[in-house]
This record gives sequence, C-alpha cells and structure tokens, in this order.
Amino acid sequence: MRPAMEAGSKGEEHGMSGKKTTGERNLMFFSGRAYPELAEEIANNLDIEITPTALRDFANGEIYVRYLESVRGCDAFVLQSHTAPINQWIMEQLIMVDALKRASAKRITVIMPFYGYARQDKKGRGREPITARLIADLFKEAGADRLMSIDLHTSQIQGFFDGPVDHLFALPVLLKYLQGKLDPATTTIVSPDTGRVRLAERWSDTLGTPVAFIHKRRDLDVANQVKVHEVVGKVRGRTCVLIDDMIDTGGSICKAADALYEHGATDVIAAATHAVFSDPAVDRLKNSRISEVVVTNTLPIPEEKRFDSLTVLSIAPLIARAIEQVFTDGSVTSLFEGDS
Amino acid sequence: MRPAMEAGSKGEEHGMSGKKTTGERNLMFFSGRAYPELAEEIANNLDIEITPTALRDFANGEIYVRYLESVRGCDAFVLQSHTAPINQWIMEQLIMVDALKRASAKRITVIMPFYGYARQDKKGRGREPITARLIADLFKEAGADRLMSIDLHTSQIQGFFDGPVDHLFALPVLLKYLQGKLDPATTTIVSPDTGRVRLAERWSDTLGTPVAFIHKRRDLDVANQVKVHEVVGKVRGRTCVLIDDMIDTGGSICKAADALYEHGATDVIAAATHAVFSDPAVDRLKNSRISEVVVTNTLPIPEEKRFDSLTVLSIAPLIARAIEQVFTDGSVTSLFEGDS
Amino acid sequence: MRPAMEAGSKGEEHGMSGKKTTGERNLMFFSGRAYPELAEEIANNLDIEITPTALRDFANGEIYVRYLESVRGCDAFVLQSHTAPINQWIMEQLIMVDALKRASAKRITVIMPFYGYARQDKKGRGREPITARLIADLFKEAGADRLMSIDLHTSQIQGFFDGPVDHLFALPVLLKYLQGKLDPATTTIVSPDTGRVRLAERWSDTLGTPVAFIHKRRDLDVANQVKVHEVVGKVRGRTCVLIDDMIDTGGSICKAADALYEHGATDVIAAATHAVFSDPAVDRLKNSRISEVVVTNTLPIPEEKRFDSLTVLSIAPLIARAIEQVFTDGSVTSLFEGDS
Amino acid sequence: MRPAMEAGSKGEEHGMSGKKTTGERNLMFFSGRAYPELAEEIANNLDIEITPTALRDFANGEIYVRYLESVRGCDAFVLQSHTAPINQWIMEQLIMVDALKRASAKRITVIMPFYGYARQDKKGRGREPITARLIADLFKEAGADRLMSIDLHTSQIQGFFDGPVDHLFALPVLLKYLQGKLDPATTTIVSPDTGRVRLAERWSDTLGTPVAFIHKRRDLDVANQVKVHEVVGKVRGRTCVLIDDMIDTGGSICKAADALYEHGATDVIAAATHAVFSDPAVDRLKNSRISEVVVTNTLPIPEEKRFDSLTVLSIAPLIARAIEQVFTDGSVTSLFEGDS
Amino acid sequence: MRPAMEAGSKGEEHGMSGKKTTGERNLMFFSGRAYPELAEEIANNLDIEITPTALRDFANGEIYVRYLESVRGCDAFVLQSHTAPINQWIMEQLIMVDALKRASAKRITVIMPFYGYARQDKKGRGREPITARLIADLFKEAGADRLMSIDLHTSQIQGFFDGPVDHLFALPVLLKYLQGKLDPATTTIVSPDTGRVRLAERWSDTLGTPVAFIHKRRDLDVANQVKVHEVVGKVRGRTCVLIDDMIDTGGSICKAADALYEHGATDVIAAATHAVFSDPAVDRLKNSRISEVVVTNTLPIPEEKRFDSLTVLSIAPLIARAIEQVFTDGSVTSLFEGDS
Amino acid sequence: MRPAMEAGSKGEEHGMSGKKTTGERNLMFFSGRAYPELAEEIANNLDIEITPTALRDFANGEIYVRYLESVRGCDAFVLQSHTAPINQWIMEQLIMVDALKRASAKRITVIMPFYGYARQDKKGRGREPITARLIADLFKEAGADRLMSIDLHTSQIQGFFDGPVDHLFALPVLLKYLQGKLDPATTTIVSPDTGRVRLAERWSDTLGTPVAFIHKRRDLDVANQVKVHEVVGKVRGRTCVLIDDMIDTGGSICKAADALYEHGATDVIAAATHAVFSDPAVDRLKNSRISEVVVTNTLPIPEEKRFDSLTVLSIAPLIARAIEQVFTDGSVTSLFEGDS
Repeated sequence: MRPAMEAGSKGEEHGMSGKKTTGERNLMFFSGRAYPELAEEIANNLDIEITPTALRDFANGEIYVRYLESVRGCDAFVLQSHTAPINQWIMEQLIMVDALKRASAKRITVIMPFYGYARQDKKGRGREPITARLIADLFKEAGADRLMSIDLHTSQIQGFFDGPVDHLFALPVLLKYLQGKLDPATTTIVSPDTGRVRLAERWSDTLGTPVAFIHKRRDLDVANQVKVHEVVGKVRGRTCVLIDDMIDTGGSICKAADALYEHGATDVIAAATHAVFSDPAVDRLKNSRISEVVVTNTLPIPEEKRFDSLTVLSIAPLIARAIEQVFTDGSVTSLFEGDS
Repeated sequence: MRPAMEAGSKGEEHGMSGKKTTGERNLMFFSGRAYPELAEEIANNLDIEITPTALRDFANGEIYVRYLESVRGCDAFVLQSHTAPINQWIMEQLIMVDALKRASAKRITVIMPFYGYARQDKKGRGREPITARLIADLFKEAGADRLMSIDLHTSQIQGFFDGPVDHLFALPVLLKYLQGKLDPATTTIVSPDTGRVRLAERWSDTLGTPVAFIHKRRDLDVANQVKVHEVVGKVRGRTCVLIDDMIDTGGSICKAADALYEHGATDVIAAATHAVFSDPAVDRLKNSRISEVVVTNTLPIPEEKRFDSLTVLSIAPLIARAIEQVFTDGSVTSLFEGDS
Repeated sequence: MRPAMEAGSKGEEHGMSGKKTTGERNLMFFSGRAYPELAEEIANNLDIEITPTALRDFANGEIYVRYLESVRGCDAFVLQSHTAPINQWIMEQLIMVDALKRASAKRITVIMPFYGYARQDKKGRGREPITARLIADLFKEAGADRLMSIDLHTSQIQGFFDGPVDHLFALPVLLKYLQGKLDPATTTIVSPDTGRVRLAERWSDTLGTPVAFIHKRRDLDVANQVKVHEVVGKVRGRTCVLIDDMIDTGGSICKAADALYEHGATDVIAAATHAVFSDPAVDRLKNSRISEVVVTNTLPIPEEKRFDSLTVLSIAPLIARAIEQVFTDGSVTSLFEGDS
Repeated sequence: MRPAMEAGSKGEEHGMSGKKTTGERNLMFFSGRAYPELAEEIANNLDIEITPTALRDFANGEIYVRYLESVRGCDAFVLQSHTAPINQWIMEQLIMVDALKRASAKRITVIMPFYGYARQDKKGRGREPITARLIADLFKEAGADRLMSIDLHTSQIQGFFDGPVDHLFALPVLLKYLQGKLDPATTTIVSPDTGRVRLAERWSDTLGTPVAFIHKRRDLDVANQVKVHEVVGKVRGRTCVLIDDMIDTGGSICKAADALYEHGATDVIAAATHAVFSDPAVDRLKNSRISEVVVTNTLPIPEEKRFDSLTVLSIAPLIARAIEQVFTDGSVTSLFEGDS
Repeated sequence: MRPAMEAGSKGEEHGMSGKKTTGERNLMFFSGRAYPELAEEIANNLDIEITPTALRDFANGEIYVRYLESVRGCDAFVLQSHTAPINQWIMEQLIMVDALKRASAKRITVIMPFYGYARQDKKGRGREPITARLIADLFKEAGADRLMSIDLHTSQIQGFFDGPVDHLFALPVLLKYLQGKLDPATTTIVSPDTGRVRLAERWSDTLGTPVAFIHKRRDLDVANQVKVHEVVGKVRGRTCVLIDDMIDTGGSICKAADALYEHGATDVIAAATHAVFSDPAVDRLKNSRISEVVVTNTLPIPEEKRFDSLTVLSIAPLIARAIEQVFTDGSVTSLFEGDS
Repeated sequence: MRPAMEAGSKGEEHGMSGKKTTGERNLMFFSGRAYPELAEEIANNLDIEITPTALRDFANGEIYVRYLESVRGCDAFVLQSHTAPINQWIMEQLIMVDALKRASAKRITVIMPFYGYARQDKKGRGREPITARLIADLFKEAGADRLMSIDLHTSQIQGFFDGPVDHLFALPVLLKYLQGKLDPATTTIVSPDTGRVRLAERWSDTLGTPVAFIHKRRDLDVANQVKVHEVVGKVRGRTCVLIDDMIDTGGSICKAADALYEHGATDVIAAATHAVFSDPAVDRLKNSRISEVVVTNTLPIPEEKRFDSLTVLSIAPLIARAIEQVFTDGSVTSLFEGDS
C-alpha cells in the first residue's frame, strides 16, 4: 500500500547509485483520553479519522499507549485537554509523544488547547518553580517539534518552548456569537482586574465600544486585607461584557459582576476562553447576577457543570483550520490578521 | 550566618585580584507529599530535618511548590514515592527539581525508591513508548544530576539515565529478617516466573539453599490460553520463599503459592521489595495460603491494606546510609559488596 | 601561591590511590567596556579589584578579549551594561564568557543590570522573533551558568534562561531616597499606563499611599488614532510619583505628567530603574513639568545627558550585596523579602 | 541532472517571493569494510548499487573516509558488521556517519546487524561502564537519526538510543529453515540458560512444541564453583533445538548439548542469530555432539571457520525489506506481526 | 493558494486513518541590512525576489525583525555581510534566524560570505576566547541548520559548526578575470606571508606558474622588533600576483609589494577574496606601487573606498549557483571539483 | 574513612535544616592499557599511585573496564596514548570515561598526549569527515569535562572541544636537551614543509637562530607529480635542526634531510614531539643521514623501534606539572609563558 518505488530509476540521477521516490506528506491525528469529544469534532472538521490508539491504565495507575496503525513518516498532531486530573493527562500526552517519536513519526505537533500550569510562568517569590517553562521543556524532551495552544495566560509563554508555537485566539469565535446580541452604542467591555485590560482593548478595538475595568485596592481606611472593587470607566446604564482568558473558581468574575451592577450596569455578560470551572465555580456563576456566561470547549464541561445561562461555543473548527494550515504550509497568522 | 569572607585575602593569591572563601558542602533533604512518613524516618536516620516546603494543589489540580529556606549551593536529595496517583507524584517531583535548579541548588539527587513505569522498559510490540526511558529523560531535563532507586525492575534501566544512578538492593534487609526464621537445609528459594530466576539465584547464593521456579506454559492438550503452572526444582517437604521485585495485583504470586502447595511444599513465604498492592492484591494475599508476606516500605502501605500475615520492613536506614555515602563521597557499592 | 598539596595524604583515604586538597572558592569580578565606572563602584563595595582584562577592537570592529591573570577554578561574575551600541556590548559579554569557559572558570554568572531586548519577550505579531529568549540562549550557549539582572521588563523572562536567575529589585533603593521627601498623606503613586499598575501597587503597599494610573484610549468621538489620556485615581491636590521600569524616549512619561497636572496634581516626580534615555528623552524631560526625575545607574548616563532635575542613585551596593550572597551561598531573596 | 526548478512558479504561491520544486526522496546505501559481502547481498535485494566510497587506513591506523558521489539530501543507510577488530569497525562507522552529516545527508540510519557491546547493558558491579548505552550515544552524537539492529541481547537496549530503533528478529528466517526438518511432536526447544527462556517460549509458541532449559547451579554437596547442569523439561527421546541470540566462544551451548544427551535426547540442533565464533568456538562446536548448527550471517564467517555441520542462512533479504519499509514509510512491525 | 488536500484520500493508505498531500519544497531568500545590493544581485541570479522583511532599529539600538509573508515550511537562505558595524550585523542575522525558526521555516541556511571573527580561531595565548567557534555555536543555537561561507580564514573553521558547512572558493572567479591578463611564462604567484603559501600553491597549480612568498623574520643583526621581508622564489623580471584571503588594513600586502619591487619584480598585482578595507587600507593601497587590486564583493565597498586601480568582481553568481545546488540536492563540491 | 559529618552542625546555618561538611578535592589518576609505562612515570612525578583498574578484552574484542576503588567525587585524570591499534585505545578511553561518569567522578579530564585523528581537522575535499572534531564530540558525549593534549597538529583543534583544553608544548623539553649541544651562531632551524614554518619561528625566536624551510613544488619542466625539494634560507655550512610536530612514516623528514645535505648543511638533527613511527619510519631514519633524532615519549616506542641515533625525552614531568596546576587551580599557561 506504500508508494511503489520507481523501477528503473536506479543510477540515473546525479550519482550512479541510489533509488528515488516522490515525497508525500501524511497527516495523522491522535487524541488522549481527557476529552475525546473535542477530538472527534476536530476530526470531523478535518474530514479524517482519529488514528486508533490503545490507551489504558495499569492497575497501579501507570498509563499504557500503543498506536494500532503504522505512523512511520507521518505529520502527527496530538491533542490533549489539560483538565482534571491534570497531571495524569499531561503525562499521558508526554507518553504519546514518546511513542510517536520511537515509531518514526516525521514531525510531532502537540495541541494543548488550554496550556496547563500557564499561571506559574514566573517566580512570584524566591524558590518557586517556573512550571510553565518546565512543561515546555518536558514536551520538547519527549519529542515534540511544535506546540499549538489557545489564548496563553501570558504571551511570553511562547518563548518558553524552543521551537515554533502556534498561538491561536478564541476572540473571533466569542465575538461572532456575541456580535449579533450586542448594541455597541450601549455596550462596555470590562476587564475583571488590571491584568486583562489589554485583552479588553482588543475586544473594544473590534467592536468599537468603550472599555472599563475593575481595580481592586486595599481600603486605606479599613484594617487588614479588605479590598475595594473600584470600577473604572462608563458602565452606568450599559450592558457590560466581562472578559477573561479563563474562569477557574469564578470568584473574581462574580465579584466583578456585583461591582458592575452596584455601579449601575443594566446587564452583565461574561465571556472567557477556558472554562476551568473548578469548585465552586458553577455554584457561584449559577447564583450570580451574570445573565449569560459564554465560553469555549477547550476544556470538557460535563453535563453536571452546565447551567441555564451557560453558552458553550465550539473551538473545534478553529483548531481544525489551524491544523490544516500547518499541514499544508499555509499561514496560521492569516487566520487572525487577514494577511498571509 | 554565611561563612564570613576572609578579610585581607584580597590580592594575595596567584593573581592580584579576587577574594577567597573555604568551600563547604551542605546536605539538604526534601520530600514530596506522596509518603511523608518515609521521609521523616530517613531524616531521623540522618539526624537532620526535612527542609520545610510549601506543597499544595491549586483548585484545578495544578501543583504549587516553594521552599521555605534558602537552598542556594546545597547538595539536594529529593524523595518521592511513586505510588498512586502515580502521575501526580511524578509531576510533583519534577516540579520540585525545577524549583531547586532555579534556586541554585548545587547538585540534585532524585530518590525514587520505586521507579515508576519501570515495567515499560522496552517496546514489547511496535508503536509502544519506552516510558522508563522517558521518565529518566524528564528528570534529567528538569535538572536532576543523579538518581537513586531500589531494586529496578531490570538493571538496564540504569542505562536510561544520562548520569550516575545509585542502584540499591533491598536483599540484605529482607534476608536479615528472614535468616533467623529459616533453616537452609529445608528451604527453597522460588521465582514465580522465568523472569526472576536470577534474583532467586542471588538469594540462594547467599543462603546456601536450592532454587526453584514456576514455568507457565500453554497446555498443549487443552485449547486456548490455559496455562499450566509447572514447578521446577525441589519443593516437596520444604519451606518455599517466593521472591519478586514487586507485588502488584498479587495474581502471579498467589497462583505460584498454590502450585507450590500442590507440589508438596510444607510452607510458603513471599518476599518482595515493592508493595505496589493494587487491587485486588490485599484480598488475594489475605485469602491465599501464603503464611507470611514480607515487603519493605518503598511505597506507602496504608492501614487498610495491612493484614495479619504481612510484615513491613523499613527501607529508611538503607536510604539514609546511601545518602550519607553520596554526600561524603563515600562508596555506595560498598554497602552491598563489602569492598570500597 | 596555590594551596599546597597535602604531603602524606596519599593512600590514606577510602581508596589506596589519589591525593587530596581542601576545596576553596575564589570570587573574581570582570567588567566589559560599556560602563567601567559602575564596575569600579561594585568592586569597591566588594573590597576587591576588577580582574585586569585586555579588551579592544580590531580595525574591522571585531572584539579582542584576554584575561591577564589565571582564572582557573574561579567563581566568575561578568558585568556588562547593555547600553548603546547595545549589540556590540552584548557580543563583548558573550565573548568574555567564552574566554572564561575555555580558561576553566568554575562557575560563570552574567550580570546584565538592564537586560537588553527585554521588550521583545513575545511574538506581538506573526513572524517576529522572541529576542529576549534568544539572548538567554546565547549566553547559555557561550557558557553562562547563571544570570543576574535588575527589574526585568516582565518577570516571565526569568523563565527564558535554563538555569538560575537572580532577579533584583531597585525599589528599595528608589524608595529609600524618596521616602524622606514624601508625605504619604498627600502622595499618590501613578503608573503611566495599564502595564505597570502592579509595580505601582508594590510601591503603594510599602508607602501606604493610594495608587493611580493613566489609561490611554482611542477617543471614540474623534477619528483616527487620537488617544485620550484618562487619569484613574485620586491625584487632585496631591504629589504624584510616576513610576516605570525604564525611561526610553520619555514620551510616555512626559505625556502622563501633563495629564496629571491637568487633573490637578500639585507636583509630579518620576522614578524609574533604567535610564535608557534614547533621544529625545533628555530634551523631553528637561522641558517637562516633572519636578524631579529619579533613576539608578544600571545604564551609564554621560554628563551631557544629565540635567538639573535629574537624580541618579547608585545600584552598585545592591549588586555587590547580591554577588556576595551568591558567592557565599547566602540568600538573594532575603535581600528583598526579609526572610532567608 | 537535478530536478529542474519550476520556471514561472516564482511569486505565484501564498507569498509573493520564493521558488518551488517537488520534494523527492533518494535512498542511498553505504557499507563499511567489515563485511562487504553482506552489503553486496542487501544491495542486490534492493536492486541498487552501494554508493562508491573511499575507505582506507593511514599508516598509523587512522581511518580515512570519502564518498565518491554527492549524498546531499539523501536518505542514507550505513551498514557495518560489528565483528573483530570490533573497535575499529565501530569507529569506522562513526566516521562514516560524521562524513554523511557534514555532506548534508537528510536522514542517516545506522545498521548494525549485531549490536557491539550489547552485553555490557548494565552495571553488573559498581564502577563498570554501560557501554551499550555509550555506543548508542556515540552514534547519536556523530549524527545518526535512527538505528536498525537484529535480535538485541536485551530489548531494553532500544531505550538506550534517543530516537527510533528498528529491531528486527531473525526468528522467521531460522524457523523457515528448520520447520521442514522437524516434527513438532518429537521436538523440544531448549534454552541453554535461564536468560533465554523467553526466546525459547517465542519459538515454542510458533512451533507448538514443548520448551525446556538448562539451569546451572552450584552443587551444594561439592565445594567451590562446581556447577551442575540441570535439565528442566521433557527432553528424553526427543530432538532438542538449543536456541540463543549469539554463539560467542561456544562453551555454554556445548555443555548444554552434553547435558541434553545425558538426559536422553536423541538429537541436538543449535540455532542462533549471531555467529560471533570467538576462539575456541569452532573447535568446540566441531567436536561437540550437536548434529547441526544453524546461524545467520549478521557477522562474517570466514571459510576457515566453516565446518560440516554448520548451516549459514542469509539475513540480507530481511534487512533489505526493512530498509525498503523505512524508506517508503511502510511498517517494519508488519514484517513480524502480520499487521500494519 | 496552498496545495489542496487530496479529497477522498482518507483511509485508503496503509492505515485506515490520516490524509495525504504531495511534498513540495519552497526556496525563500532573506537579507539583512548590511549589504542589500549583494542580496539583490543574488536574487536576480536566482530569478526570485527577496522575501519582504521589516528590519529596523529601536531608539536604543535594539533590532526589530518581522517577515511580511508566511515562511512556514520554506527552505530559508539568510544572507548577511559581516561588515562594520560587525557586531550589529551578526546580531541582526541571529535574530533573523530566531524569527525564521519560530515561524516554522523547515530548514535554515545562514550565508555569511565573509565569516566574522574567523581570525580568532584558536587561543593564541592563554585565556583568550575562540570566537570563531563561538560564532558557529551562536548560529546553531539560534536555529541555523547549515552554514555557507566563502574562503574561510582557516579550513578548520568548518569543523566549528555542528552541521553541514558549504565552503565556497572565490578562486575561479578571480582566476577567470586574471587569466586573460597574465602570461604564465612571466607570472609568479606570491603569498605575502608564510600562512598563505598553500593558497598560493592552489593558484600556481591551476595557472602553471611558479610560486613565491615573503618571509618576515627578526633581523638578528639589529635590535628589537625590526623585521626583514625576505622574498623567497623567482620574482625578478616577472609579474607578481600577491594573493590573500582578505585585505584588512593593507599593511602586510603593501609592504610585500615593496619587497617584490625591491627584488626586481616588473609588476605587482594583488588579488584577495574579502575586501575588509579597514582604515587606512584604501590610502595605503592607493599610494602603493600595486598596479591593480582585484577583490570580490563579499563585503560592501562604498564609493568612497573605491579607487582607480581597484577591480571588484561579483561573487553573486557563485552564491546563487551554490544556493540552487543546495535547494535541489545537487552538489556544491562539483562547482569546484568538476565531479559530482 | 570518609570525612566525618559535623555533629551538631544541624540547623545552625542560614536555614534551620540541613547538615554541613567541609569540601575536599581528591585527585585520582587512571591509565588505559596503551602505554602503562608513561602513566607510571607521571604517577611517580605526582607522588601518587595509579588507581587500580580492571581492563581486559572479551573473546570477541569488546573491552571491559572496572575501577577497583571508589571514585565518587574525585577529580579524575584519564591517560591514554593514541598509538596503534589506535581505534581500540580511543574506544577504551571513551569507555573509561563513561564508567567514571556513572561512578560519580566529579570532574573528568581526558589526557591524550598525542591527539588521534588530529590530521583530519578539515574537509580537504567534499564528503570527507572532520574526524578531529568527531573525536572531541565523542569524548564530550562520554562525559569528559576537559581535555589535555600536547602539540596539537593545528591549534584550531582546541576549538573543536566544547570546554577547556589544556594545550601543552613540548618545545621547552626538546630545547632544554638540545640547547647545550648547539651553537646558535652555526645553527639553523628548518621546517620540512611550508606547514610548520610557524613552529620553526617559535624555535628560532627562543634560540636566536635563523630559520629555513623546504618547499616542495611540482617541477614545471618535468611531467607528472615529480616534486622538487627547494631549500629556503641559509643552511650551507650550518647545523640544521629539522623540526616537526610528529614523525609518522618518516618520508618527509628524511627527504628534507637529503635536501639539506645537498645544499651544504654540515649536520642534520631532527626533533619532533610525537614519535608515531609507522612503518617504514624506523628503517628510513636509521638509514638516513640524520645524525640524531630527538623525540618525546607521548607515544610508546618499543625496544625494536629504538635505534642508535634516537634520543627519547620524557614528557612525564610536564604532564605531571600540568595535572598539578589543574588540580590546584593554578595556571597551565604559566608553565610556558612565565606569567601566572
């Protein structure tokens, strides 16, 4: 079934020895066990099948991997969602990369829609690790040639990997959904803290809306760690879209929503790329005054974590397009910038 | 509190510039969260304290590490038991090594009493990983200078790490306990399969007893995968000591015990270094005819997994002695061979 | 002049062969040509002499390096200020590291008070380099074991180097100078844009003052790129301290000062660690309404760039203390956190 | 003679610059001087010519290599037999790899039918090397991308190389020859020691014959190192096939044959992959009661080492098929497992 | 604009999953700012366009790079002339390589027609760097797969790079120009010192002329560093062609010319590959008795450095041919040796 | 026998945990089997014993290494003479380094008095290896931290090793012997070809004698490869000292001697560092008119290769002094330059 070798080609080329064949590229797509539904959706978008793979745990929790088809020479894309139990799924993805390398895959692209440990991207205090760099190094060591990820916590993480990183943005996906629902004239984009103001600016630049944000500061008149949530910008009488890269326990975004309503907002919507939804995020969001929470499915959101005001948009078409660009030497940048 | 710099030493040495101080070595001992009791025991044997370390999980399961004292320039030993949830504890140890490297530890020795994934030490079939090699590479990449481990599943694993590996043996610990209980004249050492015959030989060479083993073969007279447990060697009327490097689910060793009794053994004792004890190991062992199960505490054995016929010997003194040899440039080999 | 070898020590230790001597550590301090005055000041603080080094340019601009004393086995600290012509001085420092490595220095710490190319720490758009990571890799490749730098543009840059980074903060130096001059009751710390609010918070946490910042946004009522400088926080009737990590061309900080005065500030002081002072910074600052500009000397400030309202504080004592901590295995963290 | 560049293709693709050509793959096959006849046979099987190469020794024994045709961009396969003088041939192969790397070969696969130093795959005692790992590292360092070898002494050696290893098995070759000669009903497969029982099992699983082995143990009734050769399994009245991965000096296999006859075997045949045949192997085998010795030609067997009862099977067709699979991105696993 | 993916190819090949496309190679050519005219000339010879690239300096001298087209998967050739300010241009080329690597270029060939720092290729004295090796390592670290350079100062520099180096020779270019002008019967090739005699021999072997050289020695009869320029070989009554790899300050070659005239030469022509022309080279050459100076344009020679007797030959066609050979897997050696 | 650990030191230093001991350095000296007499001599000069080491060949020529004492933490110096069979001895030294690394030696210095393959230090033609670089890389990969060698064939080889190289010169040893025998007024130093003129200059600079050399050129009047040996410099009526880095087959130096006598030399002495003495060197030298051949013992010279006019000087004291400098962090440069 392999490309036949050219008969008679022997000895005709620039030397007198050797044998030629035409180069071909073969895209293969692999998925860990963390979130098979997302993999299935991406594969459908690509019109291919996920390469069948044996994946299981031994009795003591060690992970076993085996590919059920030859992967020799393929252009491999390996998807894993860094969801809980996060260390297990990271280790599974590392082992999958090792098996691909040893089975002679030609190029290995690791896809981690949510980059695990992205928040430990610096030493906040002495004697801390920089785990986000460690993760990049571990995948490199296992055999990864390239990384693909969505909305990294800080852009500097691209520089942690010694090789190409395709950094995708969920902004167009979220915007497309919200655009029809919002009237720019009465909408304000709000960052829940000072760290996401630049992201808010990117939204407002596209929508042509004002931007606002919440500034948490120590109340100088009150003792201890009491924080005042100061709202900066025009929110009174407006629909506020609270944006963030991820919602983890939801505390920050719910308090921000409260502050917005206190300052006269008429409606508050929350939009984020990564729905980490650690406890008690779902309870907080359900019980908050946020009218709609819009996220993507970079991480699995099981039924029991879904609630009425939650909208989950699929990230699969974006990832599929990026894979196709990478495979065919197209431009990933052009997916976001409109140029090549 | 640091060694004071020599006043007046400036300019007197072979150049005219520079400043000298006496070199010192500082042993520091660190422990992950997998099995703190073992760490405590080793520290007591070394007469030092475990360096205080903040270790906790974030809401989404990511691990946080921070050392609460300066570790600059220290000779660091980092212990973690590769027990369930094994991937989490391996990742924690990797992160601890990263934090030590970035905090300027001088040398980092990773201690994994049981080497996780040791059984995936080759490609049994095409397109499998060699995870035992991957583990060695990940620790190297994170910053480990040396490894210390006990009774590796195969000795070749030493060659997976690009640096020194101190390979310790629990044999003396187990033997010391059993020696008083056994009469060599009526004892036989038995390997539960053909893979551990060499280990059995090491026991028998020391004790001066015969060796036997179990050979599982397909019964040629019966269809399918039925295996016959053939006993090879003298066991009738003898006390049999079944030895292995680890007891995982216990199936193999319990069937071996049955076969021994069927062939006339008067008593069966089991001895192994690593008590992995995955389900249903404890049930099997409790309900087996093995009169005593002797293991070490390279892995934690919680109360609910302890049963009457189980004896757990401490590996802590051996690890402590090895650490001391490594720290003082002594000989680890001499702990086992009697020479320096 | 070397430590004499112990006569008679032969054969007495754990083997029968070999010869021993006591380990010693030798601190040596080296400086490139970018800013010799800073090196001299640090050396004085350390009470040592800069190791004499031949450094010159060949006719075609290639740099020549040679150490005039033996550096074998030393703990080397190599200082270079990444000032203009910045590429030349970076290359000189790389070559100095290569020469130290090949001359058997035991450990090499690169000191770059201002980390060149720190602002190119991510791909802002597709097909850009991440030069800050490249710089880290080049020094690693040349032979650097460790880096020391002050107030990195983003903390994530620590993660770009594969080894320990000592990240120092000029905050205590600047604060100590300003503390006597300011009344917390009437002072506000101001960040000139949204990117430095966290730095402003660190100042305000120490001083117990409020914090404010400037938010530049597109004026939605006016066409094109016109930006409005919105002042957030209490500044009316107060002394404002504008803080930043560096002042490059000075445009941003001068416009911020104007906005503060417009909003009723009674006085504006500017404080920054790195005085890059590229043209036309000096003209702008001289002609601005900023009453005092306080910086440190991480970069050289020649006489012609000094003006009446400029105060330059020396960073040398801080660097000297950090070197001493590193050399004696003390704690650099403790210089800033008060703990070990 | 190179593929012509597409005229007019300039500027038509996704950018406006650049120039395209179709990728092609070019298989080239190289051989060291250890065993040119095997190389010739493989080349014939592949229907290509060995690339002409100048290989000679300088007066002081240094080896000179030069390829006489351009190898730029080729998919290179470099064969060397690790026979005596083994260190010279290993070094020659390393130098050949270096020359290929520097001449821009695209991918380099090292073929060592017998992996030299495979038996030093662990530290049997303290302060030994792990030379099998060293060999893997040396080839990696020289520029090898992949290894191909036959019947590694232990499968773990695959994990010593940081990259893909194609591990071939001679079993089908040996079996095919023997199958016609043996009646499973009266045949037993015998391992000459406890280390090869698993290999014997693979034979017996295929042939449907019983398995037996020799257990060497200290005779407890006799002083010193006297070993008793215990035969385990049914051998009386049967044809015994002694199998091993290699025959080095032949001592072990000849003693095993004696033991088998003593225990009533009617015929003894020996089968092994690697005919190392170090002195006095040939004398021992010739003078033994083994009726036929079957080996492959992974190592050269000169005329003077051939004897009447020796049968040498060619390994060349197997290696040629594996090369073809690797070159065309087929499956090497399928050569042995029947699946892709 | 990318090659379309084969519809329906899914699942037909050796596995059931995956998707194929034909491999293609895409040559892209990039140039730093040191010498754009040479790049333009090479591009014309290749009949392609230089890929548009944003290159500029920030206010403090840091260099900014961005490619204006997708470079994903391309075979990149990056040209920079190592001319003054040499450290800036080397750094720019390093940054360009980093940006290519991170933008997924498939292969990166660094072209440095003149290899900067080539003369610091050894430790002439203790504690010097080996900067020529450092340069090779820096480019490797940045991401270079291959180097291309012309007339390296010493051939050993090829060995400094860990990968293929295409070492081109300007000899045919210079010879072609001079051949028509010279009568071998009355011409002598002269090396200006003992270090270039081998280069002279290569010229004389081609032209069939005698060779001579200048030997500088201390005059034993005169104190201090007075050197006598001894002419070795037949020069009286002959046209002398002084050859060298580079002309830096011109001192050596002008003194050599004087010595040749003193010894009776009738005409002196100078030929060199690299016109470094550091001050006061131009003055010296203009005022010397050398009748013609022939160089190539590996380095830019601005109008003000051109003088009447200077002839500049273009190296662009040679570089273009070498790029084409590399791109199409042809032979670079054949450009000089006449064989493949 | 190890340094005792400080009782009570626990917890007193800057942290509350840990345990200290004083650093010590332990010099250990190892020798391969190529030339044990030289090792013995060096050990005597150092007043230590060679560490006992098991070194032997297996039946098939594989080398076995084991150290008979603990080497943990030692400063190891490993000597091997790269004499015939050169590939075997290089491989033995590589294996010795691997064993030291895995046995936890702290630092490993490889001593190769004669650097094998030094003459393959560049690609003389396309598709040659650069074996001298490969050798450096292999030792680095095996675990060598540093190299020590004497009179490298070209100084650039220092740049092939990624780490410190101590390059020693035999010149003082040879000069000291010859100085008493020669009258500078009537002596000339002669290089046998154009490649060693710089070495000759170093001799003549020290002795204050003139320098001369032999220039081999094609005789333009005679067909084919006939070479004329042209003598350059004053030799008539003088004692000529022919110098070279090595004497391999002796052809070049003997022809040079003939040429010198033909041109009127009264006496010819030959001096070289490395006595490679490949056949037929000894016959040629014995039968030549060279009155005395002076070499060092960097390579073994067996009795049968010694002849009347041969003088062998010991290099052992020089190597011993260099080892002592390296061990005690002294200066190796000072052994040759007179400064530290």
